Amino acid sequence: MKIGFVGLGSMGQAMAANLLKGGHEVWVWNRSPGAVQLLVEQGAKAATSPGQAFDVEVVFSMLADDQALRSVLLDSGLLSSLKAPLIHVNMATIAADFAAELATLHQAQGVAYVAAPVLGRPNVAAAGTLEILVAGPADAIETAQPLFDLIGRRTWTLGEQAASANVVKIAVNFMLISAVEAMGEAAALVRGHGIESAKLIELVSNTVFPGPIYSGYGGLIAKRNYEPAAFKAVLGLKDINLAIETAGNVSVPLPMGELIKDHLLDTIAHRQGHMDLAVLAEVTERRVK
Amino acid sequence: MKIGFVGLGSMGQAMAANLLKGGHEVWVWNRSPGAVQLLVEQGAKAATSPGQAFDVEVVFSMLADDQALRSVLLDSGLLSSLKAPLIHVNMATIAADFAAELATLHQAQGVAYVAAPVLGRPNVAAAGTLEILVAGPADAIETAQPLFDLIGRRTWTLGEQAASANVVKIAVNFMLISAVEAMGEAAALVRGHGIESAKLIELVSNTVFPGPIYSGYGGLIAKRNYEPAAFKAVLGLKDINLAIETAGNVSVPLPMGELIKDHLLDTIAHRQGHMDLAVLAEVTERRVK
Amino acid sequence: MKIGFVGLGSMGQAMAANLLKGGHEVWVWNRSPGAVQLLVEQGAKAATSPGQAFDVEVVFSMLADDQALRSVLLDSGLLSSLKAPLIHVNMATIAADFAAELATLHQAQGVAYVAAPVLGRPNVAAAGTLEILVAGPADAIETAQPLFDLIGRRTWTLGEQAASANVVKIAVNFMLISAVEAMGEAAALVRGHGIESAKLIELVSNTVFPGPIYSGYGGLIAKRNYEPAAFKAVLGLKDINLAIETAGNVSVPLPMGELIKDHLLDTIAHRQGHMDLAVLAEVTERRVK
Amino acid sequence: MKIGFVGLGSMGQAMAANLLKGGHEVWVWNRSPGAVQLLVEQGAKAATSPGQAFDVEVVFSMLADDQALRSVLLDSGLLSSLKAPLIHVNMATIAADFAAELATLHQAQGVAYVAAPVLGRPNVAAAGTLEILVAGPADAIETAQPLFDLIGRRTWTLGEQAASANVVKIAVNFMLISAVEAMGEAAALVRGHGIESAKLIELVSNTVFPGPIYSGYGGLIAKRNYEPAAFKAVLGLKDINLAIETAGNVSVPLPMGELIKDHLLDTIAHRQGHMDLAVLAEVTERRVK
Repeated sequence: MKIGFVGLGSMGQAMAANLLKGGHEVWVWNRSPGAVQLLVEQGAKAATSPGQAFDVEVVFSMLADDQALRSVLLDSGLLSSLKAPLIHVNMATIAADFAAELATLHQAQGVAYVAAPVLGRPNVAAAGTLEILVAGPADAIETAQPLFDLIGRRTWTLGEQAASANVVKIAVNFMLISAVEAMGEAAALVRGHGIESAKLIELVSNTVFPGPIYSGYGGLIAKRNYEPAAFKAVLGLKDINLAIETAGNVSVPLPMGELIKDHLLDTIAHRQGHMDLAVLAEVTERRVK
Repeated sequence: MKIGFVGLGSMGQAMAANLLKGGHEVWVWNRSPGAVQLLVEQGAKAATSPGQAFDVEVVFSMLADDQALRSVLLDSGLLSSLKAPLIHVNMATIAADFAAELATLHQAQGVAYVAAPVLGRPNVAAAGTLEILVAGPADAIETAQPLFDLIGRRTWTLGEQAASANVVKIAVNFMLISAVEAMGEAAALVRGHGIESAKLIELVSNTVFPGPIYSGYGGLIAKRNYEPAAFKAVLGLKDINLAIETAGNVSVPLPMGELIKDHLLDTIAHRQGHMDLAVLAEVTERRVK
Repeated sequence: MKIGFVGLGSMGQAMAANLLKGGHEVWVWNRSPGAVQLLVEQGAKAATSPGQAFDVEVVFSMLADDQALRSVLLDSGLLSSLKAPLIHVNMATIAADFAAELATLHQAQGVAYVAAPVLGRPNVAAAGTLEILVAGPADAIETAQPLFDLIGRRTWTLGEQAASANVVKIAVNFMLISAVEAMGEAAALVRGHGIESAKLIELVSNTVFPGPIYSGYGGLIAKRNYEPAAFKAVLGLKDINLAIETAGNVSVPLPMGELIKDHLLDTIAHRQGHMDLAVLAEVTERRVK
Repeated sequence: MKIGFVGLGSMGQAMAANLLKGGHEVWVWNRSPGAVQLLVEQGAKAATSPGQAFDVEVVFSMLADDQALRSVLLDSGLLSSLKAPLIHVNMATIAADFAAELATLHQAQGVAYVAAPVLGRPNVAAAGTLEILVAGPADAIETAQPLFDLIGRRTWTLGEQAASANVVKIAVNFMLISAVEAMGEAAALVRGHGIESAKLIELVSNTVFPGPIYSGYGGLIAKRNYEPAAFKAVLGLKDINLAIETAGNVSVPLPMGELIKDHLLDTIAHRQGHMDLAVLAEVTERRVK
């Protein structure tokens, strides 16, 4: 299949490489050219403009944020020049509102828009075992499914409204950050009684809370070692604000989200915004008398 | 070994049965006699008083709450009549302060006091696969270890201070309840966007949050089906209050705990205290306009 | 002076009447004609369109909300037809963002825009003793000052940026609602000890907290009598949301505002949104076990 | 009348001086002798022990905290040596529970116990214009009334249960601290929009919120000048904890109190506990990005 890929950060690069391994013709574009060169060495074709990468059967995008996508796709006039048949699969975590806007704009062009945010870090992307949350037109998803299978372990379909995949991704991030806050408070509680918090984390991650989140963030909290950051606290604030806004748009309160927002603002006020999200634990720790 | 067991609720009964299967001589006592009879049929000996059950090498207690233990052991005068060598293993979840008080009182009698609260429900206790949190004198724990192996899958030792096991148990319960609150808010968020919360729960419990807590409570939240309760909301309030108090005793704030306390009070105000803890999700759901 | 007045609700009507008493020529307009007739009987001239009321030296507006003003002034094309010299004094409580937008749009027409939200209820407006918060071009304020003196007791000037008056009004409303929440919690505290909350309110409103807010809302809380509403809980929610948004626009957290928002959502969920804001006290009262 | 006075801090000294001006025979006692000497120069008689100051018709106490009173009155054995007829008027702000315990212990001795915490600072005490909150046996209050009239401007009687006066005092302090928190957040909101918070404070303290609290604490917040402290933040934390505990004893939640507690812990974590309570405003200010 003739495929495009726009946005070759550490996540995008790993995904594009897996599409290449599947034997597809992949046209890649990136703002800075270094990443393009690496993929060309693996068999990709260098697109000289985003437009060339969108002149395919299925184009994937994985740009840094809402603003980057708006610049490349809308402000440039690219979207209004797109021609059917084309499927645009956007794998970035963007605001649900923006996803809905994009779906409408694509539909007006006769182009299918599929939202496909993922769970997993660059090493998981490299292994081709991402969890992919997908929403959009059913036939477009069916066409893209073999490509998703090259990129991820499983595909979770969430309906025909593209924005639904973004809403669910945002809800997952909210739950993840809430778990970190809860661990931080629990760690302070046991430490206050002279117990090493590593014991608490070892216990829960081997019993009631298996999985990577509790052991990963919990381990950092137990060691109080927050650098280098795998996921920065400032990005946690971005996600929490996204959750509060997404909930607010449909009049849903999110009290735990608001509490965590205040703690993340406190984190940033203490110049710890560049540290790993696990540094949330220090907000409570600072207040122990 | 000659063993005693005091307190034969659904948890105690299952544990005592597993000790019997290990070939030990087990003297059992319970306030109401029905549970005693069931164990006698499995080979136990009926103690005619708590004192007789404490006249052994190792005695286990699993009474309903702090008050029941205080009544049986302290108010009755039993504790001051105990004679060494004896190891008392208390498996109930009690306040950390009370555990510390008990440790001191036992020591004055020359009797070893071991705190051993457990993670797991009656069916887990019946299978002999409980997770056991243990703290107390090292030699007493060593002596009791073969008995713990009959009752549980693993033993987590948490030091010589008996109260430490209770503090950790309380911290685990706090984390568990926090996860339920986070799921409730996240479920309201996705529902507000017309997405079934069951999809969110299925996703997270198969990916980032495996294990029984997210799938179990999450499943109830998705179905909004809170009866019959496996773990009642009123008991959740008891646990949250215990966490706030245990943290407060060492000047640790617990803001997420305080937020959840308010939500549990709201739950009870709506006559849902007898429902499963998962009903916490309805607090947010009620406030959606 | 030739004056216009647009928006004759209970507040606008009282203010227009006071301008008439000052001997001015006042052209009045209102969506529904009843209020116009009442003022004509007091000497006003009936404008047949908003445009006629804006064809004066100074025009006052006191429309119900942002949407009404947007409809009358912007969507209708009226603003782009305005001619200098003209001073538009907007007395309504609107969003700070919208005030800034209006200031820019008026300036482009060469028309002065003055924001002048007020403190006080209809009876205070009738007595001509409102407190007026004013911001906008200094010379326009100087010209309008004799008119403000007919309407209010005092004028508080808050600078040249019109939006500043709206920001301060929003901050005052936030403080007012916070005082009501604090009274509600304090009332529940003393009631829980068998003390009539009326005694607490009598004490504070005669000592540390004189003034109309504590005695007024406090009196309603003490009697638990919330109807008819002088200021509805749903309007309190609108004001709190405005405060959170206005703070958020400049990255200021407002944790007490967020807590109160949750309580107001709870109030509305209990079908008490139409009751007086003092009904906030029932949120805490409901949760007392 | 023959009167005793125990506890001659800045408040006690001023009150004792006013009793002397009323022409009474006043026996004074204090842990450190300097304050005694000053009052002897004004006509007081120096008691050589607390017991001598309690050998009168009416004895006032104004000791620093619960612990000081417990030490002087209970641990010393003094209480059990008291003889009727005697009225003990305790003007200190103590825990409601302790007040109830003291009332019971005095009653067993046949001695009347009257709780009489006050509103006002040392300069108000010196002027004899304190507000006095009184609860206890009606006949004892009647007897002491002429003495209250020498000390205060007004007496607010709150029933026969002594603890009621302490509960109400605690509720007033909670409302006061809540007002400071609300001002702090409101000040950050207007500052974020480039408006001097002094304008907001001037406005509200001259309109909706007259009285000493808003202008006093508000003035400090506007100047961000928190030293020297008239009322220290650490004492604010003591009062908030007292409020939460007093509410919790009768199962009343106090969510705003809990939020403020967290902010005061943050204040102390930033080594600002010795500053004026108005420093609460800096918690929000620190978090503004």
